[in-house]
Amino acid sequence: MIGMDEDAKLNIMQKRIIKSYAWQRDIIVPLSKGFDCTVDELEDLFFSLFDLGTLEALHGTFESAKDICMYQKFNADLRLCWFVGTLEVISPEDAKKLKMKLVEEVKNGKSYEDALKEGKLELFELLKREAKY
Amino acid sequence: MIGMDEDAKLNIMQKRIIKSYAWQRDIIVPLSKGFDCTVDELEDLFFSLFDLGTLEALHGTFESAKDICMYQKFNADLRLCWFVGTLEVISPEDAKKLKMKLVEEVKNGKSYEDALKEGKLELFELLKREAKY
Repeated sequence: MIGMDEDAKLNIMQKRIIKSYAWQRDIIVPLSKGFDCTVDELEDLFFSLFDLGTLEALHGTFESAKDICMYQKFNADLRLCWFVGTLEVISPEDAKKLKMKLVEEVKNGKSYEDALKEGKLELFELLKREAKY
Repeated sequence: MIGMDEDAKLNIMQKRIIKSYAWQRDIIVPLSKGFDCTVDELEDLFFSLFDLGTLEALHGTFESAKDICMYQKFNADLRLCWFVGTLEVISPEDAKKLKMKLVEEVKNGKSYEDALKEGKLELFELLKREAKY
């Protein structure tokens, strides 16, 4: 890349990251669908929002954020904000254990819907156990 | 109810609450489906878990918990834990405003899916605005 200025080099490095298979599959394609924009538009947006270092780290943070999002989704779909927060019939520890188990199962290949179904049955067991005391 | 002991009276009052239309529609029927149990089983569970006062207040808390759950679901489905928490390209205030607006729209009759679709477009606008600075 002799003769290129620093900006152009940086731009090529940014493009290389964002054009990678994992980036396109996990971030660019699904987001551009939701945003109803082209892949190019979204790539340009990411270029102007993030510098090279952030782009490099981004895919890793996306993975862990996905887990956190899924954890929150189980919380909502199992109505745990009600059972744990308002009613206090499920302990925060039991709720956390259940949600983390379900997230693990989805990461190991189970569908979200199946894990949710199983989670509801386990929640029922926890409630029955609580009712016995 | 002359001649009945206190327990029996209480039990009738509990039953009256839990057999009400709103209770059955919003809580008992959907939960029993998810828990894969009969309506009777679930009613008995609620009887043993909660006293009369809690049962009376329960429907109101269920409604507000539903809103909180939906708010959390939008957070997950819009990947806001990533955009706000990790990347810090959306401010917590903007995220909160967006989520509360979407929850309101669902409460006013829009489907969750439609609100989510709209929310994604608005998120894209927020990101583009951020990219300009």
